[in-house]
Amino acid sequence: MNYANMLAVALAEAQTGFDEGGVPVGAALFDAGGKLLGRGRNRRVQDNDPSVHGETDAFRKAGRQTNYRDKILVTTLAPCWYCSGLIRQFNIGTVVVGESANFEGHLDWLKEAGVKVIELNDPACTALMRRFIKQSPQIWFEDIGESK
Amino acid sequence: MNYANMLAVALAEAQTGFDEGGVPVGAALFDAGGKLLGRGRNRRVQDNDPSVHGETDAFRKAGRQTNYRDKILVTTLAPCWYCSGLIRQFNIGTVVVGESANFEGHLDWLKEAGVKVIELNDPACTALMRRFIKQSPQIWFEDIGESK
Repeated sequence: MNYANMLAVALAEAQTGFDEGGVPVGAALFDAGGKLLGRGRNRRVQDNDPSVHGETDAFRKAGRQTNYRDKILVTTLAPCWYCSGLIRQFNIGTVVVGESANFEGHLDWLKEAGVKVIELNDPACTALMRRFIKQSPQIWFEDIGESK
Repeated sequence: MNYANMLAVALAEAQTGFDEGGVPVGAALFDAGGKLLGRGRNRRVQDNDPSVHGETDAFRKAGRQTNYRDKILVTTLAPCWYCSGLIRQFNIGTVVVGESANFEGHLDWLKEAGVKVIELNDPACTALMRRFIKQSPQIWFEDIGESK
């Protein structure tokens, strides 16, 4: 499985989000054979919708699936509790994480639940997110529930 | 705070969902003064959208809020991991649960994170959910990620 190519899809979504003025987190869901099922990005700013994180958007775009154990969710940033809960509830088998330097997420919690977690520590993902947080800290903190 | 009246809003959403052929879980988000901010219901069947649980729909409908610590999320059914993650990430202060007989959720996990959890053990919520699970078990199990 070429995880780098999969991450490129998620990163393209994140870049589009950044260009739209949104939180640059992108994600994509693939089947066991590496076929793309859905791709998406955070839409808090674009749609004024706090419920759409990159992971939940990709999950939505993939439509109804009867089973997620053999699916692969690729995300540019380590998932927050909301998205970690999605992964755990629907038993998504594998999660590929672009970076966890800007937000460490809850990768151990996922691993303990049996999720296969693959960390790519991708410099491009890290740089894009860092740029956004520096530029729009208030939106970033709103997006992770840490507004003052 | 009249939690029973708040639950009635969520239960009306659940009943509408049931009448539409959907998973009958409804929810509503209120501010600290009891003002309704958003109400919604599970839309897996109606919109063919697996990302919309009752809680996430109410959260979405309430729009962007800068802080959730003083907000009250009322739901007809104990939240799954996905919705529990939402509550925890956004630091929703209070969760009112209609029933946990049909799905026990992760109420202890929320309490440990400092969420105030109020259980109403409402017979009408329990009966509606039980009716749906008996009638459409395959949709129910799909909705909680337990399809065979």
